[in-house]
Order: sequence, then structure tokens, then C-alpha cells
Amino acid sequence: MRPIILDFSDSSSDSLYIQLYRSVRDDILSGQIKGGEKLPSLRVLSKNLNISITTTQLAYNQLLVEGYIISKPQSGYYAAQVSASKYDLPVMKPYDFTSDEAFHLEDNPFICDGDCFDFNKWKKCSSKVFNDYSDLLLFESDTQGESALRFEISKYVYSSRGVTCTPEQIVIGAGTQQITGHLCRILSKMNINHVSLESPGYLPVHSMFCDSGFAISHIPVDKEGIDISKLPINISSAVYVSPSNQFPTGAVMPVGKRSKLLDWAADNDSIIIEDDYDSELRYFGRPVPALQSLDKNSRVVYLGSFSSTLFPAVKISYMVLPQPMVEIFEQIKGQYTQTCSKAEQLTLALFMEKGYYYTGIRKLRSLYAQKLAITLQTFDVFGGDNIIPIDTQSGINLIIKIKTKKTADRLCEEAKSIGLQMIPLSELTEQETTALIFYYSKLPINRIESLIKNLLQIWDA
Amino acid sequence: MRPIILDFSDSSSDSLYIQLYRSVRDDILSGQIKGGEKLPSLRVLSKNLNISITTTQLAYNQLLVEGYIISKPQSGYYAAQVSASKYDLPVMKPYDFTSDEAFHLEDNPFICDGDCFDFNKWKKCSSKVFNDYSDLLLFESDTQGESALRFEISKYVYSSRGVTCTPEQIVIGAGTQQITGHLCRILSKMNINHVSLESPGYLPVHSMFCDSGFAISHIPVDKEGIDISKLPINISSAVYVSPSNQFPTGAVMPVGKRSKLLDWAADNDSIIIEDDYDSELRYFGRPVPALQSLDKNSRVVYLGSFSSTLFPAVKISYMVLPQPMVEIFEQIKGQYTQTCSKAEQLTLALFMEKGYYYTGIRKLRSLYAQKLAITLQTFDVFGGDNIIPIDTQSGINLIIKIKTKKTADRLCEEAKSIGLQMIPLSELTEQETTALIFYYSKLPINRIESLIKNLLQIWDA
Repeated sequence: MRPIILDFSDSSSDSLYIQLYRSVRDDILSGQIKGGEKLPSLRVLSKNLNISITTTQLAYNQLLVEGYIISKPQSGYYAAQVSASKYDLPVMKPYDFTSDEAFHLEDNPFICDGDCFDFNKWKKCSSKVFNDYSDLLLFESDTQGESALRFEISKYVYSSRGVTCTPEQIVIGAGTQQITGHLCRILSKMNINHVSLESPGYLPVHSMFCDSGFAISHIPVDKEGIDISKLPINISSAVYVSPSNQFPTGAVMPVGKRSKLLDWAADNDSIIIEDDYDSELRYFGRPVPALQSLDKNSRVVYLGSFSSTLFPAVKISYMVLPQPMVEIFEQIKGQYTQTCSKAEQLTLALFMEKGYYYTGIRKLRSLYAQKLAITLQTFDVFGGDNIIPIDTQSGINLIIKIKTKKTADRLCEEAKSIGLQMIPLSELTEQETTALIFYYSKLPINRIESLIKNLLQIWDA
Repeated sequence: MRPIILDFSDSSSDSLYIQLYRSVRDDILSGQIKGGEKLPSLRVLSKNLNISITTTQLAYNQLLVEGYIISKPQSGYYAAQVSASKYDLPVMKPYDFTSDEAFHLEDNPFICDGDCFDFNKWKKCSSKVFNDYSDLLLFESDTQGESALRFEISKYVYSSRGVTCTPEQIVIGAGTQQITGHLCRILSKMNINHVSLESPGYLPVHSMFCDSGFAISHIPVDKEGIDISKLPINISSAVYVSPSNQFPTGAVMPVGKRSKLLDWAADNDSIIIEDDYDSELRYFGRPVPALQSLDKNSRVVYLGSFSSTLFPAVKISYMVLPQPMVEIFEQIKGQYTQTCSKAEQLTLALFMEKGYYYTGIRKLRSLYAQKLAITLQTFDVFGGDNIIPIDTQSGINLIIKIKTKKTADRLCEEAKSIGLQMIPLSELTEQETTALIFYYSKLPINRIESLIKNLLQIWDA
């Protein structure tokens, strides 16, 4: 074995062990020490070079970790087979990041309005997180969600919807599916395994509860919301309602009926899940208080989301739990991890704290109202008698009734082909009349008229 | 009813309907039109003001949507009760965003090294996403993950681990839990409901499969990994292995045994789930190819994650599915939504595309090797005979064996009190000897020596 030489004239300021490490590494890479060749022991090499055993050990460890040498128990150190670095990190070829292939824009045929959101203010907040709070990014997010964001949400839901809660009652997750997943586990722990859903109602909710093994009842909805007399009694269960804007009927539950629903929950040791989706965009004109704000018996779980009021790629939802359910979540939350990006949560907390969120909602409301006006006017002027738009005051969509022989699916496909998002509303479909939900709010305002004219031509209705 | 006056001298460039809307709104807000007062019909008002019915309708619609007026069927329009705007958006009080209350730093007692990650480069990529690609944020993320990121991952896993796949085979999710959730649903569709786990092994995996209703076998692990002879035969099942660095033993499965495991899967129509966690930080020195790279029969699901190589707050994991499982995922993916932040996925894609990720890993490896060297040296010099650190070459942690009468939990608590992260390794605990896993890699390099000295004093071992 040729001797390892440590060149002490090395002018670098690196410590001795780094110099030794580099010397051996270079000998292995150049082939002067061959793969499989035995290296001198720590003791021998230290003595030869007149350096401490610790220094030699540090150098060998570094070589070991980087894979230049291997250690065989009861035998010693050997040079590794470092060949054409089969597993070395690659030099990447440049890639056209803006290509369609990279982003699959064709997967998103729907036209979306970039004026709905102020990306500059968001970016400002995002930069502040990386500049000033990057220490916080060195830890994983709290399973329950960032405390700064929960604080902002608790202030917000109180002032906007009368929902009273502490930040400790709020659980944040990446979308309704994640939140509902946690909720199912809490309900199971409470020995509740039956949930009543609105019929017609928001379909994805069905599969969420179904996936978690819940038994499901479908309760009819009239123009004042769910039929309370058909809910289970003498058993603990849960009911999922959207009392402020029932999907898809737009029914609003009056205050008197809300009290009755709360009484049902208290009398039957049951839980009300109140989905207040998109409330920011529509409760104006219908200031019915949230069920949660009327609840005195810790019976209501309140669900909210930022999907419609920020840009669509942000998936941050939340629920407000009554105190007894908070305690159950405390017991199980260790088994789960937070799905929302921590940086995005902190960015949103800053965005709310600086008031940008509130400004944004005011702007959105005014913008969407104008879009609605233009949409209604265009259908009115160009639509003819076979098309009747119905303003459900949802703030983001309306219902279109069409007298046609085409199927709802066909009409939606045709709308999609020019970038318009519609979904069939089979519950309201009668003989030769088809009903669709039309998301006018996503369209750029100066294109609505021409897009709808185009649609009417394609539909030929 | 006092007449509504439209001031045509309004010098603004706003359209007529906005001027009418504003005029009525201001009258309602000032009390000149009282709450509950009936408004003129569309026809009457249009005639009085000599404007078109459409213009009046647009103004009324805007007022309706914003809640200033209400519409009663078969009756007409009425001014709403717009009082002290109970539900108006709040003016927020400034909040001390940097307070401990906001961030609950006390929940994270462990010391974390900010030098491990280049936040400036990340921020640069993040800004580029908001500046140049904000159009992409107007659509929700693909359930499978952003195609740009899947492209970068496919290049990366091939060059770093020999894993061959197309971007279409990759599924992205916010952490192992989300990915495993999808995997469980795919396996169920394949009629597989039994999974074999390594024992001892990574505990959270157990509850993930358990939660999804899988039957579980625990298969013993020796120094070459899982005991293949104990796996189920004559039945389709799945096995979860970490062949490149078994947790917690650090066992590496030799190539010969890998072939046998692949044969077992092919012979029994079964699936191997290969968890290659943290591979970037440790496969050097043990260039055993990934199981996936040896698989010719579409039997291996490969799991990877960015948790250890980016900053801890990023939760982006991925799996590489064999083609037949891709087709099953295609069928069910419509039921689920993407949990990873789209902006963060695009940022990471740019970060990889620009080569920053590769630079970062090289830096991390060198940094962690130095930290390991200092850690071993400090224990060597100051630790005495009762403490034996064992380098498992994991790249991020090592095992410490301690002769003590204290329990493992007690030792970990004491370590935590000074910010050091350790977890008990009960499987290796013998009489009066306790074994712990010590995450030295998270500590700032210039504090390791003093922290360990401090620890030794507290332990008094």
C-alpha cells in the first residue's frame, strides 16, 4: 500500500481533518488508491502523519459518509469502488418550463379571470414570510394549523358571521376533504356513525362520509332548507346542512327554523355540521346569522374555506369545533399531520392581518355583482324565450333553465368547448327543460357578453 | 314615495346603470329611502328617468346582490333594512404578528439549524411563480400533482436512484399520510387487503394501513432486512419495506435478497412498497440500486419525499406507481383533490429545474458529515465508557447506547429540555442499557459540542 501523504503546505484555511479527507478522496478518485484496497488503521495513519487519532477519525468518517471508503467490522477501512459515479447527482439539462407539456394548460379548458385577485399583495406577504419569519419554516406546521392564521380566522368569522370561538377551536386543513376526514374521526370517537345529508345536496360530501364508514340518510329540502321532522331522534347522530345557501336550491333557512334545528341537536345529543361555504360572497342581502352564532349547547361545527375568495390554487379550509370536540381532537391529532403548506398559512395570516383579504372581498363582491348584471342582461337581450336565467344570489353562480331536447351533459360539454364552466342540475330537470349551474363569476368581465353570445349560437337554443 | 333622481351631470365615466345604482344606494344609506319602503317598478322608473329597462334592471340587480334592496315575488322591490351594518366587514385592529402567542414557538423546543437551506433561492423561485406564472394559480392543482414537478421528479429519481418512470407514473401529495391514503385505495381496488410490515419498523405506517382497514402482519427484520420466508404466499398481498436503510436498525438489503423479494412479488401477484426515505442524504457509500430499478414485473411502488432535503415546513411527498396501478388511480382520482400547495409545487419544480436542489443536497451532505464527525468526536472525548454512539450512516441521525438506570423516556425528556431531539429505541434496549435515536443533523454546527457537553452533564451518565 502506498503511503497517504498529507500536504501541510496546503494554504487553505480548512481544518486538518478536511485536508486529510480531501487528500484521500482525491487519491481514490484518481485511482492512486484502488477500489477494495485496504487503508491504514486510524492508529497507524495518525502516527505516520503525526496528527491526533480524532483528526484521522473525522476524516475517515467524512469519507465513509460520502461513500469513498467502507468500513468492515473487525477488519478496517477499505477504498470503495468509485467508478463512473453511476449514482452521482446529475447535471440537469435545461427544460422549457413554460411549455404546454410542463403545465398541461389544456387540462384546464375553463376561462378564468386574473383580475379577481391581487397577486402583488400576496407576493409581498409571501416574501415577508421568507425574509422575516424563515425561522418558523424550520419546524413542521402544527397539525391543527398555524396559530397565527387561527387567530386571524377567529377574528374574521366573528366579525363577518357572528361566529364566536377561540383560535384553539379552529382546525385548518388542505380542503374540505381533509377537514371532513378529521371530523369523521372525531364523530366516531363520540360514538356517532350516522349522518343525515340534504337531498338534493352537495354530492362530494356523500362520498366523504361513505368512505369513512358512516351510515347515511338523505333528508328532503324545501325552500326553507332541510325537513327537520325527518331527522333521526332518540339517537346521537350528525346532520350536514348549508343553511345560508343550500346547494343547489339556494334555500335559506329562516331564523325560527334554525332554532328548531338547534333544539333537535340538543334534545338528541346530536351534532350539526354547518357548511357556510362562500358566505363572504353572498350573505349580503340575507343577513341571517350563522347557526353557530345561535348555538348555546356546543352542538354546531362550522365549516369555512378560502377557495373562492383567494386564488383557486390556494386550498385552505377550516372548521370551528365546539369545546368538547376540541378535547377529542387533542387526543387524536398526534396521529395526523398538517396538509396545508405552512408558508402559505403564514402568508395568509399576514394577508388577513394587513387587511388585504377584506379589501379583496369588497372588490370581488362588486366585481361579481357587475358580472352577474352583464350575464343577466346578455341572456335577456339575446337569449330568447327558451332560456331563463335564475339568480340564486349565490354570488358566484346562477341557474339556467333551458327548453331543449339536448341533454344537460351535452349542453355542458358544448359550454366547456368555449371555456364556460357549467354543471347539470338534474334535480331541477323537467320534461324538455334542462337546468344547469353556470359559474359566470370566473369569466373576465369584458368577455362575458361575447362568450354568452357564442354559447347561444353553439347551443342553438 | 319620493322620486328617485338620476343626476346625469355625474362627471364620472361609469356606465349609466352604475350611476343609478349609486344614486339609489346613497339614498338608502342616508335614510332618504327608508327600510321597507317600496321602490318604483322597473317599467315606471325607466319611463321616469327616460332610460332603458335593461339599464334599470342592471342597477336593481347590483343593489339586490349587495343587499341594499330585496325583491318580493308578485310584489316588487323594497329597500332593505340597512342599519348599523351588523355583518359588514370589520376594520381590523393591528396584531403583533411576531408575538410568541401568534407563533407558539414554545411548541417547538428543538433546536433547528437555519444554515441547512438557502431561503433566498427558494424565495427567488417563489417570486417567479407569482410574477410569471400567476395564470396557473387561477386553476386548482391536478389531483395527481403539477405536471412540471412530476417531470422534474422523474428526471431526478432516475439519475439519483436509477428509478425509471414517466411523469404520468408519479403521484404527489402533502406528506406520506396522504400518499399512503391513495395507495390504500388503489390496493383495495386490486383486491389486496393485507400488508406485511417490518418489525421493528416505522410505527406511523402501521396506523395508516390500520385506519384504512388493512389486515397487518409483522415480519421480523435481521441485518439484511425483512425475512422473506415469512411473507404470505399463494395470496395477493403487499409488503412495506425500507431496503436501503431499514428504520430503525439501519439494515441494508443486499442485491441478491432484493431479487428474491422481487421474485416473491411476481410469484404471488403481490406488491412491494419501497420506502426510500431520505435516500439523498445517505445512499452514498452504499450504492445499492433501488428495488424499483431492478423490477421487471411492475411490482414495486417507490415512495420518496422532500421533507429532509428542503426546509421542514415543506410537506411534499411522492410515489412512483407501476403502470397497471396508474390506470387504477386514473379511475378513482376524480374523487380526491390535491393537498399540496400548487404554488409550492411550482416553486419546487423551478428550484429543481434551476439546479438549486442539487446544489442544496451536496451542501447538506457535506454539512451533515461534518456534524456527524463533531458529534462522534464530542461523545468520544467527553462521553466516557457508558455512552456508545453508533453511526448507522443514515445521514441524519445516529443511535446512542447508554448504560444507565434512567428510562429511555426520561433521557429523551432531559435532552428535549435543552433542545435536542431524541426518540427511544426500545427494540435495542437491554438490561441497564438504553438505546436512543439522536437527530444531530438538525443542530447548528458551532453549537454541537457545547450542547452535547451540556447533555452529558444533565444525563450524568
